[in-house]
Amino acid sequence: MITVVVAPGHLAAGVAVPVPEEEVHHLRVRRGAATDPVRVVDGCGTVATGALEWQGKDAAVRVEHTERVPAPVPLVVAAGAGDRERFLALIEKATELGATLVVPLATERAASVATGVRASHRPRLSRRALEALKQCGGAWAPEVAPPEDLTHFLARSLPAARWLADQGGSDEPAGGAGPLALAVGPEGGFTEEERDRLLGAGFAPVRFGPNTLRFDTAVTAALTAAWLARQRETHGR
Amino acid sequence: MITVVVAPGHLAAGVAVPVPEEEVHHLRVRRGAATDPVRVVDGCGTVATGALEWQGKDAAVRVEHTERVPAPVPLVVAAGAGDRERFLALIEKATELGATLVVPLATERAASVATGVRASHRPRLSRRALEALKQCGGAWAPEVAPPEDLTHFLARSLPAARWLADQGGSDEPAGGAGPLALAVGPEGGFTEEERDRLLGAGFAPVRFGPNTLRFDTAVTAALTAAWLARQRETHGR
Repeated sequence: MITVVVAPGHLAAGVAVPVPEEEVHHLRVRRGAATDPVRVVDGCGTVATGALEWQGKDAAVRVEHTERVPAPVPLVVAAGAGDRERFLALIEKATELGATLVVPLATERAASVATGVRASHRPRLSRRALEALKQCGGAWAPEVAPPEDLTHFLARSLPAARWLADQGGSDEPAGGAGPLALAVGPEGGFTEEERDRLLGAGFAPVRFGPNTLRFDTAVTAALTAAWLARQRETHGR
Repeated sequence: MITVVVAPGHLAAGVAVPVPEEEVHHLRVRRGAATDPVRVVDGCGTVATGALEWQGKDAAVRVEHTERVPAPVPLVVAAGAGDRERFLALIEKATELGATLVVPLATERAASVATGVRASHRPRLSRRALEALKQCGGAWAPEVAPPEDLTHFLARSLPAARWLADQGGSDEPAGGAGPLALAVGPEGGFTEEERDRLLGAGFAPVRFGPNTLRFDTAVTAALTAAWLARQRETHGR
């Protein structure tokens, strides 16, 4: 079944929801019968099914059924605002693995990455989250923040369980079964001062593999570790 | 410290090991004093340190010290020979997370991926593994096989513990602490027939996250799960 993404707040049974322009092209390429059922997600927990209706070059979905998917456990990912192609991959993986918020961190070493994430890239990053959501079958896309510095990030209301991806850290990640904040440095890592601030804010150094991981690998690995911890808790293991 | 990769079999104390041409450029960009210590890896478990010697446009490392790193636990990754850019990312992640062999699987649905991995891409895939090895600080790069079909793959001598990444699978990955074979479908997944053959060969369906994962995400997640299982076993948890 084809999935399309629409803006939040429009999905209700009986309503004809206009399909955004960038989605129409995708639909046209994969166009089947006009009445093929279509899955519609808004990235905020509403999943609908309906029938595709073409009106000339425009398309709409006549919603037949909607479902609310409960909000996922808060999983905050803060990663150095490094290379934007890597960051786009990171956003994709974070979406697949259930992150609820992704914050590009404007750290000292990220600043020297010529291809680093800037505030102007935010629409593209958010778009990638929605594309990943279509692929992975989820209902909630992570919010993608504009780049912010450590002071702003640490001033947020963050989950109590906090991991700092760190090759020198513990290989016993604890506390990952509930709400979690994860901090991952950019290429070259956090500076000692940044690391000290994160440690001071309760981020526990954890490692997720035998070697030093690229920052996008570390995010995928850490979110997997958190998911496995949730499953173990669910099953009482 | 700068790391360079050389072909296996040359690293011994006192020897001046020529630096391959593609590495020389990298060294020139980052060129420091001619006697800066350099780390040299061969991807097959030998790690050396030595001094850089420039001879005109060429460079060599005068090896001072070598160390043998024990071979890692066998971790075989077979993944659908899908989009090659994703496969390159997969190779990078597999290297960071300690895979010992990566097999691109020529499956039915991979065949229809226009940008899929072909036999001619093997040098580029192997090169990416060595690049990742330099970054991650490891000593062993995975062998990268040319694309092969399921019949050839299943005729290999594979580890007894076998996981099939499958969103409908168990969330209790078992047996991941030792030698392991992992099978991941390409875009669109394995066909039912391919899946049946893998199940028949003892591959247990396992899922690694809340949603359907892209194949490169699934590889990273599965290797992380295996690593965590090894740590738990090491610590007797």
